Amino acid sequence: MAKNGVRIGIVGGTGYTGVELLRLLAQHPHCELAAITSRKEAGTGVAEMFPNLRGRVALKFSDPDKAGLKNCDLVFFATPNGVAMEQARALVDGGVRIIDIAADFRIQDVAEWETWYGVKHACPELVAEAVYGLPEVNRAKIREARIVANPGCYPTAVQLGMLPLIEAGIVDLDHLIADAKSGVSGAGRKAEVHTLLAEASDNFKAYSVAGHRHHPEITQGLTRAAGRPVNLVFVPHLTPMIRGIHATLYARLTRNSDLQALYEKRYAKEAFVDVMPAGSHPDTRSVRGANFCRVAVHQPRGGDIAVVLSVIDNLVKGASGQAVQNMNIMFGLPETAGLEQLALIP
Amino acid sequence: MAKNGVRIGIVGGTGYTGVELLRLLAQHPHCELAAITSRKEAGTGVAEMFPNLRGRVALKFSDPDKAGLKNCDLVFFATPNGVAMEQARALVDGGVRIIDIAADFRIQDVAEWETWYGVKHACPELVAEAVYGLPEVNRAKIREARIVANPGCYPTAVQLGMLPLIEAGIVDLDHLIADAKSGVSGAGRKAEVHTLLAEASDNFKAYSVAGHRHHPEITQGLTRAAGRPVNLVFVPHLTPMIRGIHATLYARLTRNSDLQALYEKRYAKEAFVDVMPAGSHPDTRSVRGANFCRVAVHQPRGGDIAVVLSVIDNLVKGASGQAVQNMNIMFGLPETAGLEQLALIP
Amino acid sequence: MAKNGVRIGIVGGTGYTGVELLRLLAQHPHCELAAITSRKEAGTGVAEMFPNLRGRVALKFSDPDKAGLKNCDLVFFATPNGVAMEQARALVDGGVRIIDIAADFRIQDVAEWETWYGVKHACPELVAEAVYGLPEVNRAKIREARIVANPGCYPTAVQLGMLPLIEAGIVDLDHLIADAKSGVSGAGRKAEVHTLLAEASDNFKAYSVAGHRHHPEITQGLTRAAGRPVNLVFVPHLTPMIRGIHATLYARLTRNSDLQALYEKRYAKEAFVDVMPAGSHPDTRSVRGANFCRVAVHQPRGGDIAVVLSVIDNLVKGASGQAVQNMNIMFGLPETAGLEQLALIP
Amino acid sequence: MAKNGVRIGIVGGTGYTGVELLRLLAQHPHCELAAITSRKEAGTGVAEMFPNLRGRVALKFSDPDKAGLKNCDLVFFATPNGVAMEQARALVDGGVRIIDIAADFRIQDVAEWETWYGVKHACPELVAEAVYGLPEVNRAKIREARIVANPGCYPTAVQLGMLPLIEAGIVDLDHLIADAKSGVSGAGRKAEVHTLLAEASDNFKAYSVAGHRHHPEITQGLTRAAGRPVNLVFVPHLTPMIRGIHATLYARLTRNSDLQALYEKRYAKEAFVDVMPAGSHPDTRSVRGANFCRVAVHQPRGGDIAVVLSVIDNLVKGASGQAVQNMNIMFGLPETAGLEQLALIP
Repeated sequence: MAKNGVRIGIVGGTGYTGVELLRLLAQHPHCELAAITSRKEAGTGVAEMFPNLRGRVALKFSDPDKAGLKNCDLVFFATPNGVAMEQARALVDGGVRIIDIAADFRIQDVAEWETWYGVKHACPELVAEAVYGLPEVNRAKIREARIVANPGCYPTAVQLGMLPLIEAGIVDLDHLIADAKSGVSGAGRKAEVHTLLAEASDNFKAYSVAGHRHHPEITQGLTRAAGRPVNLVFVPHLTPMIRGIHATLYARLTRNSDLQALYEKRYAKEAFVDVMPAGSHPDTRSVRGANFCRVAVHQPRGGDIAVVLSVIDNLVKGASGQAVQNMNIMFGLPETAGLEQLALIP
Repeated sequence: MAKNGVRIGIVGGTGYTGVELLRLLAQHPHCELAAITSRKEAGTGVAEMFPNLRGRVALKFSDPDKAGLKNCDLVFFATPNGVAMEQARALVDGGVRIIDIAADFRIQDVAEWETWYGVKHACPELVAEAVYGLPEVNRAKIREARIVANPGCYPTAVQLGMLPLIEAGIVDLDHLIADAKSGVSGAGRKAEVHTLLAEASDNFKAYSVAGHRHHPEITQGLTRAAGRPVNLVFVPHLTPMIRGIHATLYARLTRNSDLQALYEKRYAKEAFVDVMPAGSHPDTRSVRGANFCRVAVHQPRGGDIAVVLSVIDNLVKGASGQAVQNMNIMFGLPETAGLEQLALIP
Repeated sequence: MAKNGVRIGIVGGTGYTGVELLRLLAQHPHCELAAITSRKEAGTGVAEMFPNLRGRVALKFSDPDKAGLKNCDLVFFATPNGVAMEQARALVDGGVRIIDIAADFRIQDVAEWETWYGVKHACPELVAEAVYGLPEVNRAKIREARIVANPGCYPTAVQLGMLPLIEAGIVDLDHLIADAKSGVSGAGRKAEVHTLLAEASDNFKAYSVAGHRHHPEITQGLTRAAGRPVNLVFVPHLTPMIRGIHATLYARLTRNSDLQALYEKRYAKEAFVDVMPAGSHPDTRSVRGANFCRVAVHQPRGGDIAVVLSVIDNLVKGASGQAVQNMNIMFGLPETAGLEQLALIP
Repeated sequence: MAKNGVRIGIVGGTGYTGVELLRLLAQHPHCELAAITSRKEAGTGVAEMFPNLRGRVALKFSDPDKAGLKNCDLVFFATPNGVAMEQARALVDGGVRIIDIAADFRIQDVAEWETWYGVKHACPELVAEAVYGLPEVNRAKIREARIVANPGCYPTAVQLGMLPLIEAGIVDLDHLIADAKSGVSGAGRKAEVHTLLAEASDNFKAYSVAGHRHHPEITQGLTRAAGRPVNLVFVPHLTPMIRGIHATLYARLTRNSDLQALYEKRYAKEAFVDVMPAGSHPDTRSVRGANFCRVAVHQPRGGDIAVVLSVIDNLVKGASGQAVQNMNIMFGLPETAGLEQLALIP
């Protein structure tokens, strides 16, 4: 680690996870931004594209071939899926550690990954080595990892909400339900008709009910926690807001338990998971721009169905903030370094 | 029925169901707006308060005592809960029929109603007579009714989505789940902090997970359809949009069935329930301003959980549009009269 | 004109002016939709693309070459700029009348048009013949026109707001200011980054301050009304809403006048221009989905600057509604036919 | 100044300027939050009301009488208008300095203030002493002030945009125009119908064209800069977003000048005014949550009207951020302390 802190390269960086990573790293006390690459935007100042960075981030996008990523301690991939797997081998062989904010290393079953992402995996052997970067589950492994697969946004919200129930072994694992609502930034900074303001504003809809890429990722995590396969129905919805995921989770209880105590105990030592008081309804704005997951657990009318409400900012705890949290763990920094900003209300 | 069509009085009318009712009736070919009452706004032109009506609705709000409601064929109550029950007896005794868009006559179990609405019911004997105004279930009774209890917005979306499964007897009635998302107009035109734009915009949250007034209403309807008590978990959410409800419904299948065919058959003759093609995801804007419920049914990955997506405009099929539909039925008019407007997209 | 009313063809129709035209024509009592063309979507039902039309518009997109547009009475071009000019000659020679909702025939100075639209004009001789379709100015000419150039959205709002002052000769023509705010649907249904919800929502900005295509169109109209060249500063702004234009207009008064009376007199016979009472602030939602322009005129603190507030729905009075109004005029129908729907509030 | 930094009391704090002040102060390196008062909420934890503060602000609202404000170095008033003037005398006599985020001390002409705010001023003699807290104009006086009148949101955006032109003496001072657009949080956290999401969303309107409280405040500032009275037309608009003001300013140039150079020079040493490159269109989100004013100056088509675009976050540079900036100046802290957070994009 360099004198100025972790020496960082970013591949990609013209999308939403990229600008969010820049916003967070620009305010991080222990890192040095060495390079950010974009073949298309090479030579453009990042602050020209994202004026919130004016006066604070002097870096220009550079051509990937000239960026000197091999001299970095850590490279973040804030790219579309399929990019990190092409470059990972050379970097890790050169001693550079990697956090992939995209999906290339998230799913251990390479055949399943290939089905969902529609391409052949370029380095299946590195998938086996990669650590799934959910600190609340894998902190020790993340510390030593060369490659961290940063979790998806829905998987973060759903797993953090479901894990206490599953780890406690008190729910029917065959009929788990995750009804998840995401702000539109989750679709990325791509020009597409269905995410235009004129299409998505003042409107609400479900999508991909038949199947979504995050389904196998969530199932993999819950299966690990359960120690046996689980069955999950996952219904994502597009919500007319910019940031935020609200996962409403339903599980049938097979045993009585003090759910509030269970959740408080599970997350007692976690800096970024906030178990709300009994009866709470966390709103997504309470984490807007902040690296928190807020969770509340309910048991409506004393019945046998637990309802968990789990909110994150999809770009922070659901992407770039969690990536910085992983960096902090990997480099022995305080886990909250650079992540202490409070959410904007209103 | 008068020469100019149904002679109509409206009690209330300064709220959202009121202005929506005025918008629809102003374009209805077979009715005559005789009076609209508001003690507070007496003397004010309705078009002064709602400029969309300028040049089309000349009526002024009148004092309830001078409005001559007894000379109407039909009185709509577009009031807060608890108003209609005070005035219903005198009107029906005078031969005036009533549609209550509020909740006073929706729940047959008066004790349960009193628990949820926090007041003593003023005319329990009329509750017994009142007909629950969901035309797709009660059309024949509505035709003859003196008092129609117009359904709530959530209950309309959830019942129309659930009924085919329940009537067919193919789902576990003890673990029904309704995850419902509503636009903010569902909270009415009341000055409240939590529905300010600065609070509710770019934000999403669940509310009333422990219990909501619409829960007993929905349960009552599903229980009737099932012929035995059902158990429903109902979680409403506040969504940053003006109009629209999206109910995502989950039911465990106890028998195999062709769900698409089931839904198409159930609603084949219904003008205002549109069963979407298999695999569809209806969006709320597809019914914005229109008296439709659009429904799609899914069975994700061939599993044993049915997922139904049901959308309405909470102010139209979920309130004033359904009220007009009920009026049409009660007075022998074509059921679609005045309700043929198409939704606004975008 | 056919027995069933005007026989209509639509070229284009996959954009916002297209779906809005379909919505209006589907509810129009005197027309018959014969064909709608889209090379890309040929064979697709229009209601598959726009579900608000389900059950009401059975038409499919057809290949332009097989659409039989020559058998229509009227063809609307709901296309990008530059399409109508390629097809106009053949159609008018065949006796088909045309309304171009795009910009090909709006500007009489062809060289100026070519500067702003970046292509050579395909039929300058037809430009000379085309009538600018602002009924409040050109009604008589529209009646006889073979080609109507339907005005742009900003030009409609600005001209209707400014014309009374200019026609009365009471303002400084060299320092007119139009500060205009538009909803995002004005940018069309094109996949672009800057109109994504995640970019344009909860945000506000000016654009094209140095120059905008609608500037010469507005200036042309105001110059005609003034009888001499005018000088206008026009600043458009992107507003986080779907529909609506609010033009705030500033003009220095050179003579005292009763502005309220002036406006009321100017528009006394106009069905679709609503002069609001003195002191009013029209809001854009008061015309959402409706073919109205609402105008209010102010003279703050009795000073020498008139402030005019002019609102329209950019897709209705600013595009497809005005096109239907022009059709009604051209074919001798009641000018309000098919345009009597009321705005949605809320 | 105490060992832990400035010892701070806040009067009020249940509104938007209050929670924003708490957010900023909780992250400020040189201050200590001693008390926050609210008679109504006494005993409630501030984080119960504003969950973004959970885990970071342990303070509870306290009764004003028991809050010990006299032991503070500085008291912020984040109250409705009319509160600070009642308490100011006792505090300043006790040696406590004051920053009033409301309007009590902004206007030197007490009679004018009383006209606009509708009450008699409680301490006119302190008005004379109070310093108008626009650091870019009054930095030296702020340093020594006992009472700082924190500027209004519109006045901040308009003055920072207009001042360079006026100080340079190159514009017609009798026909200045400020067309300003504000997000809804500018109206505060009060329950009112017109700022409900269902009213204000997907909608746009002007208001108070005849006169607005910020008009005399702006005029006072511009008059001081001009050295003679100015005449300003000010038209505020309600914009469907949470935070942000965009002021579009128009001034007739009386002399040629390099406007870009003028602005860059005027603000060269200012940390919180960012003059954008020539041709820019700043958007409000580029300052969302950040204490910046971004300004761009245009001269459309080389004409004689200058157009200035000025954006701020109304709750930060337009209220609580500027208040913290004033505190930093008053207490000799680095002016940017606690104000280095970057805006959220998207």
